Amino acid sequence: MQYVFGVDLGGTTVKLGLFTTEGELVDKWEIPTRKDFDGKYILPDIADSVLAKMDEKQITKADVAGLGIGAPGPVNEEGTIFGAANLGWGTLNINEALSSLTGLNVKAGNDANVAALGEMWKGGGQGYKNLVAVTLGTGVGGGIIVEGNLLAGATGAGGEIGHIHVEDNETEVCGCGNRGCLEQYTSATGIVRLAKRMLASTDEPSVLRSTEISAKTVFDAVKDGDVLANKIAEQFGEYLGKGLASVACVVNPEIFVIGGGVSKAGTVLFDYIEDNYKEYVFRGCREAKFALATLGNDAGIYGAAKLAL
Amino acid sequence: MQYVFGVDLGGTTVKLGLFTTEGELVDKWEIPTRKDFDGKYILPDIADSVLAKMDEKQITKADVAGLGIGAPGPVNEEGTIFGAANLGWGTLNINEALSSLTGLNVKAGNDANVAALGEMWKGGGQGYKNLVAVTLGTGVGGGIIVEGNLLAGATGAGGEIGHIHVEDNETEVCGCGNRGCLEQYTSATGIVRLAKRMLASTDEPSVLRSTEISAKTVFDAVKDGDVLANKIAEQFGEYLGKGLASVACVVNPEIFVIGGGVSKAGTVLFDYIEDNYKEYVFRGCREAKFALATLGNDAGIYGAAKLAL
Repeated sequence: MQYVFGVDLGGTTVKLGLFTTEGELVDKWEIPTRKDFDGKYILPDIADSVLAKMDEKQITKADVAGLGIGAPGPVNEEGTIFGAANLGWGTLNINEALSSLTGLNVKAGNDANVAALGEMWKGGGQGYKNLVAVTLGTGVGGGIIVEGNLLAGATGAGGEIGHIHVEDNETEVCGCGNRGCLEQYTSATGIVRLAKRMLASTDEPSVLRSTEISAKTVFDAVKDGDVLANKIAEQFGEYLGKGLASVACVVNPEIFVIGGGVSKAGTVLFDYIEDNYKEYVFRGCREAKFALATLGNDAGIYGAAKLAL
Repeated sequence: MQYVFGVDLGGTTVKLGLFTTEGELVDKWEIPTRKDFDGKYILPDIADSVLAKMDEKQITKADVAGLGIGAPGPVNEEGTIFGAANLGWGTLNINEALSSLTGLNVKAGNDANVAALGEMWKGGGQGYKNLVAVTLGTGVGGGIIVEGNLLAGATGAGGEIGHIHVEDNETEVCGCGNRGCLEQYTSATGIVRLAKRMLASTDEPSVLRSTEISAKTVFDAVKDGDVLANKIAEQFGEYLGKGLASVACVVNPEIFVIGGGVSKAGTVLFDYIEDNYKEYVFRGCREAKFALATLGNDAGIYGAAKLAL
């Protein structure tokens, strides 16, 4: 039996998984992310935890095909992370550093990209090898898989689809410093912005006037037939459909896998995305499928394991 | 000495090149593209020409590493072309068909994508492995190279960047059936449209009022300091910069290589593209370089040869 480790390095906790090389999850656990002293203990802590697990399970280095790790920052094809502010890290080659600490073959990637690989391997994108994962959370992240391989990009910024420009008339600034980014309309916070603007622009009644506005309450209202919520969802869908159409004109995927907190609304999202996607996209890309992500918070460890194989 | 053939299949002529595997062009020639009988003679003609050249040069099959071919239609990773209207072809696996006719290893790709590979190998993108080639011709084509490999896409529509949506307020229809495609503003014909609209919208003097409008005359006027031509170039640059910024948010290239007829204007184009690109793109992609394509009409045979290696 061959094993592989998948590590999802976050700002608060590190999630770790031990898998068979076929993708069966044998064990998973967490350790805290120690950010003191510019994060210098983070990789040693991970190495100690992995080696302890091998000891516990009586697994030798010869039994381990590799260790993959997703990190919260831009990581290039060679495993170099170009800074991770919330870990205290500057530029660092994770492959080399963690390999020398563990004696294992290490392969690092950006966390959002790695999660995409997880969804391809064992999640909503199973059976596909040209896939775009879209994470609609606090921001909008993306991960691009081409012929089964992660697209890291020259500086680790491959798949940063949340910052595709989709609106020329935006006055507010995105977190990235630009104006009119996809993320400003289709993240959880973006949907709240759309909702507040819509509510302010009209006197139409809506259940949203008497509840806290969130992506969840907006889509709950949509499901309850609220007319104004439906208009907000249409705006959301037009921006996302238009943005994903641009993505498709570049990488022509078989499938988009939609995850993140907003995706908890379920397949109702597709009612708003797909028609707009088809309207804006090049006809050769019109048949791309849409699916929901299924691995939730485990996508990172699954994808990291797959990355190492 | 090992050889490789590169074939650029066009609607009127087939260009063929014999290269060493190091990329030295040994010989190049052309044959007509026989489109009668649904193009059934096209591949046999190519096979005959290649086998005759091997005979002439006393090259055996063992001396030939492979044969690459770029075709004018969507070609997927496996060499299947999904129809080529101007050849009379339906869906066809070129790899298999041409391999059985020649006894050589054959690898087919879309012609624009293959030209990108040529520019990476021996043209304006030498030394880079994450590259986007942009062809500003009658239309706008693209080719995406990721880690040295061509991105074909699920249905061969990878790199169709001319159909990225960049303008919400367009009333005219693009050749693809959509409205507001990048191609409508930045192809040779797109620049003419921009120029005619600009001239109609104002009484400002311009040398363009007394000459035939083309991409060439517009950029010649720009170089001569014509104020109105400069405004047209600014519009062109804003659309192209914005579109390429979207491309970069997906694939994060090291370099954009600009070719096609419009690129004959030279590096003056970059004065209009780069500032807009930097304004719209995600900051992690801001350092991408811009270069001119250098292989001209030979990009196809170079890229096809490289594809086969």
